[in-house]
Amino acid sequence: MEVTALELEIRRRIDQKTKPVGSLGFLEMIAYQVAMIQRTSAPHISLPHIIVFAGDHGIAATGLVNPFPQAVTAQMVHNFLQGGAAINVFCRSNQVGLSIVNAGVAATIPDHPNLIQSVAGPGTANYQDGPAMTKDQLNFCIQQGRAVANKQIQSGSNVLGFGEMGIGNTSSASLLLAAITHKPVASWVGSGTGANAAQMETKVKTLEAVFHTHQLYQYSENGFALLQQVGGFEIAQMVGAYLEAAIQRCVIVVDGFIATAALAVAQLIDPSVTKFCIAAHRSAELGHQMALDWLGLHPILQLDMRLGEGTGAALAMPIILSSVAFLNEMASFEDAGVSNKTS
Amino acid sequence: MEVTALELEIRRRIDQKTKPVGSLGFLEMIAYQVAMIQRTSAPHISLPHIIVFAGDHGIAATGLVNPFPQAVTAQMVHNFLQGGAAINVFCRSNQVGLSIVNAGVAATIPDHPNLIQSVAGPGTANYQDGPAMTKDQLNFCIQQGRAVANKQIQSGSNVLGFGEMGIGNTSSASLLLAAITHKPVASWVGSGTGANAAQMETKVKTLEAVFHTHQLYQYSENGFALLQQVGGFEIAQMVGAYLEAAIQRCVIVVDGFIATAALAVAQLIDPSVTKFCIAAHRSAELGHQMALDWLGLHPILQLDMRLGEGTGAALAMPIILSSVAFLNEMASFEDAGVSNKTS
Repeated sequence: MEVTALELEIRRRIDQKTKPVGSLGFLEMIAYQVAMIQRTSAPHISLPHIIVFAGDHGIAATGLVNPFPQAVTAQMVHNFLQGGAAINVFCRSNQVGLSIVNAGVAATIPDHPNLIQSVAGPGTANYQDGPAMTKDQLNFCIQQGRAVANKQIQSGSNVLGFGEMGIGNTSSASLLLAAITHKPVASWVGSGTGANAAQMETKVKTLEAVFHTHQLYQYSENGFALLQQVGGFEIAQMVGAYLEAAIQRCVIVVDGFIATAALAVAQLIDPSVTKFCIAAHRSAELGHQMALDWLGLHPILQLDMRLGEGTGAALAMPIILSSVAFLNEMASFEDAGVSNKTS
Repeated sequence: MEVTALELEIRRRIDQKTKPVGSLGFLEMIAYQVAMIQRTSAPHISLPHIIVFAGDHGIAATGLVNPFPQAVTAQMVHNFLQGGAAINVFCRSNQVGLSIVNAGVAATIPDHPNLIQSVAGPGTANYQDGPAMTKDQLNFCIQQGRAVANKQIQSGSNVLGFGEMGIGNTSSASLLLAAITHKPVASWVGSGTGANAAQMETKVKTLEAVFHTHQLYQYSENGFALLQQVGGFEIAQMVGAYLEAAIQRCVIVVDGFIATAALAVAQLIDPSVTKFCIAAHRSAELGHQMALDWLGLHPILQLDMRLGEGTGAALAMPIILSSVAFLNEMASFEDAGVSNKTS
């Protein structure tokens, strides 16, 4: 009853703004969702922030699934710390905060003021040969992901986006989604950072074999077990971050294919997570629209991007801010003395 | 030869950034276009600004084509000047400048520091009975539109968006597009600010009759004559602004259905205008996608909005800024010591 009254109040407030009813389209839905998450008809966005989790994947050392060499993960973390990557540029351009988490890169990354060391190991084990991580590593990742999100929320952020970097992690995401959705592995395998036709064929065959080796279908309802078998450290920490952010009623901005796969795992663990989520964009990676559909999310942007790092989330932030701003700052018909429709 | 070298230099610069080739999707095309407009591989955006042209339409006094009364145009101009409309909120939220132009509202609008008085008359004549405006009014509008754009460019803006306010102006836009494209009037008539089924039927019949009375097909190649017959003062001034901005190689951000119709007219007059244009969004108004297709423009946003005022242009500005920022600020593979693809 209380919630229903709030719902009506938010809807009334949106419809009384000086514009034809419904004419701000998707922005009205975003404003409504943020208001419901914050349980107020006057929501407020504070310190929007993106956390990028980086980790390496054992399979990537084989080169079977990735056009870029594994060393690129560590190189890109350095690039993040020096401010030269796309996510740095987009966060600066859109006044979004940024943290980088070393969730388990294969190379040692020296300490840096902008780096959170949260290392579960020197990359996951190759899941062709057994589980990607131990149960202890999995628990560490979930707890660390929760802790990193919690710390940022305690610092005053109430909108968080999660990005990732990890050569080979579209493969992990594809396997997780295939297991959760019962749709064939091949339907989830896209070109990642840019595999050509021959590389794609090898990638599909390799991942189909992994799916069968682990009999992944048996874990379709067990997010933790799935992560242990074929997840990545950065993906598992992101799952922990989703779970924590949702518990704290934070607005969560969902980035691309891998971030959406991590959300699908988090939703298995806590089905209430998704209602705190806004999908930033639909990427060009093959399975992303299908994953968003599975979660019932509609993306704000469709810009044909496929970079990860949280770049889609950073670009969507101004739209979310504008959505909340119209709810708070626009005049009503009554306030402004504007006539409403005659019929 | 010179241009080709520049094209190659811009493309090379984009492709050497630390990301898989093409992975920033549409943002790469925007960066490329802005660079070509500014004739440099290091473009710069200065003082992005939106100019909203407001004017009344004689036909709107009849109530045949508009669910909102004509008085709303003047009321909304007051709302713009008080900062309470959606365009005010979105410009503030995205750090975009805003000017309001009284191109010819039916009521007198008192002077105001944020208002540019550019009044061609107390609204157009009802085009059911004859031309919407005199030739003198048309010439005044084109010159004023040019002057307003020029003044803003001289003030330092090199990215301009144009918005509009005018009860009844989707009707004018539909007639202009029907004449230019030779597609039936009915295919261009949408619900505007929210016409219901019966109102839509009346709107279509009314506008079909106007099309035949004026024999508009005979003006399909004459933008000025079309504007005089069925244009609006705000639309004609916007056409002048497009023409001026293009001559000065300004980046032009195209808003919704009416702004796109005005661009179609401007393109008739100067076919080179469109290459300076970036389509901000695809609105929910029926004919907008068709108009964008006619002009060969691909919209940045698809947010199901249908408000006008330049709101789509304001929301697209951060994406354009981010596009230019990545071209200028991202590290190259070489700069950052990141390995490129192995194949």
